[in-house]
Parts: sequence; structure tokens; C-alpha cells
Amino acid sequence: MKITNLEDLFNHTLEDIYYAENKLVKALPKMAKACESPQLAKLFTTHAEETQEQIARLDEVFEALGRKPKATECPAIKGILEEGEELMSEIKDPETRDAAMLAAGQAAEHYEITRYGTLVSWAKLLGHKDVVTILEKTLKEEYGADDKLTKLAETKLNKQAA
Amino acid sequence: MKITNLEDLFNHTLEDIYYAENKLVKALPKMAKACESPQLAKLFTTHAEETQEQIARLDEVFEALGRKPKATECPAIKGILEEGEELMSEIKDPETRDAAMLAAGQAAEHYEITRYGTLVSWAKLLGHKDVVTILEKTLKEEYGADDKLTKLAETKLNKQAA
Repeated sequence: MKITNLEDLFNHTLEDIYYAENKLVKALPKMAKACESPQLAKLFTTHAEETQEQIARLDEVFEALGRKPKATECPAIKGILEEGEELMSEIKDPETRDAAMLAAGQAAEHYEITRYGTLVSWAKLLGHKDVVTILEKTLKEEYGADDKLTKLAETKLNKQAA
Repeated sequence: MKITNLEDLFNHTLEDIYYAENKLVKALPKMAKACESPQLAKLFTTHAEETQEQIARLDEVFEALGRKPKATECPAIKGILEEGEELMSEIKDPETRDAAMLAAGQAAEHYEITRYGTLVSWAKLLGHKDVVTILEKTLKEEYGADDKLTKLAETKLNKQAA
């Protein structure tokens, strides 16, 4: 894809996050399965369901723009998930592995927050009003998912690992 | 490095962010040089200087823990920077390239925010009080850098690209 203006860059970033969400929706159930903490497993399972809805929302965005849904390989989310998977397989102690997976989950959420934040501000500038509403819904959900992970990290999970 | 408990995981994550900061300190001046907007170039240059101080602070953290500074390859920051570099070389239109670099800068900041946030909460649990203070100083700076990028994105830069 040749990028010559902000509209192209917006479309490219949309394909990037479409790739990221499709990677995440596969990774999250595996992470849930590897959890020792039932609370952490539940957060990952719930977020896998949310991610499924977020993919459907991206399909709507592509449709609103008159384009077919397309994924473009995103090295950033690949790197974030690769790092998490390495730790998941290396760490044998269940509580320490949970702490590592929680941190990996937060890194993935932060990546999505920054990308959806960028997409929302570009969609506004480009005058894609209906798309803004759809993307803002997902952005709010991502903040919520990160928040739940942070609360679990602070209140319970990491204390067990320490 | 074998990770058997939270202390090991903390040390591993410290080496991960040490690698990330050392990558970033080299990438930021290149990004500043490629900018069309003097304001964006200035933000990248200032943050390169901050990053230099943040590396010195990590050296202090390693010293406080009685360890030698060490970097462990971090696929996440590699992926984030790779993505930014690809766009930098592909996009010919200066305003659109600035918008892409700004977004890449925010992705890097968000990665650092999540990692330093995790390190601070683990350092607290592990009782490394002096280390908490050092890491919190950097975390605050990273939030500040992200904030400045967001303000520039909202007020001026992206409008020029649109």
C-alpha cells in the first residue's frame, strides 16, 4: 500500500489494528488456559469475547469506508505477544507466570489504546463521523480492560508472587 | 536467565527496558532529523536527552540492586520501532510522515509507560524502596512525553496532514 496522505495512513493503521486484534483473539484463550489465578483467567476470557466484538466493529468501519476488511502484518503486536509467549513457556512457578502474563496483557492493551487513540483523532480530522463513534466505543473498552488488569495486579495477584 | 520468582521476573523486565531505552536513544535523533515540523523535531530531541538520563537512572537501579547493567533483547520495542522505521522510509509526503512518526513515538511511550508501571509495582512488593523512587521519576517523565505528543497531535500537526 502506497501512503501519500493522511487518509492512506489511516487506512494502513486500520489494517494494522485489524491484524493485531486477530492475533490477540487467538492468544487470549491460550493465556486464560495457562493461568493459575481464576480471576486473571476470567479477565482474559472476557477480553477475548470483547476482542471478538471489536473485530466485528472493525468490519463495520471497513464497510462504512467502502473497503474490504484487510489485515497488514504489525511487527509491534507480534513483538509484544512473542515476548509474552516466551515468558509463558519459560516460567514454571505458577504465581510468577501469572504476574508475567498480566504484564504482557497490559502491554497489549497499551498498544491498542495508543493505536485506537490515533485512529479516533485521525477519523475526526478526516470527517469520518460514524467511524469515530465506533472506534471510540472500542477505545473505551480497551481502557476498561487495562484498568481491570491494573486493579488485579495491585490488589492481589502480584502479592502472591512476591 | 532462569525465572523462578518475582525477583527474577523483575530483573528480567529491567534488562528488557534497558534494551528498549538504548534502542530508543538511537532512534529518536533519527526521527527528529526526518521531521518536517520543528515542534515535533524539538519534542523528539528533548525526549532523546531525557532518555539518556533515564538510562543513567537504570544504571543506578542496577547498582542499588548490586547488579551490573545488562540488556536483554526486547521483541516488543523492536517491533514498535521497526513499524515506525518502515513508515518513515515509505511515506514521501512530509506532513503525513510527521503524523506517522508522532503516532510511532506515542506507541513507544505507551510501551515504556506500561513497563515502568509494572516495574514500580513489582519493586514496591519486593521492598526495593530506593528503586521505586528512581523508577517513578522516569514513569512520570514518560507520561509527560506522551502528553506533549498527544497535545501536538490534537492541536496542530495532524490538521496539517489532513
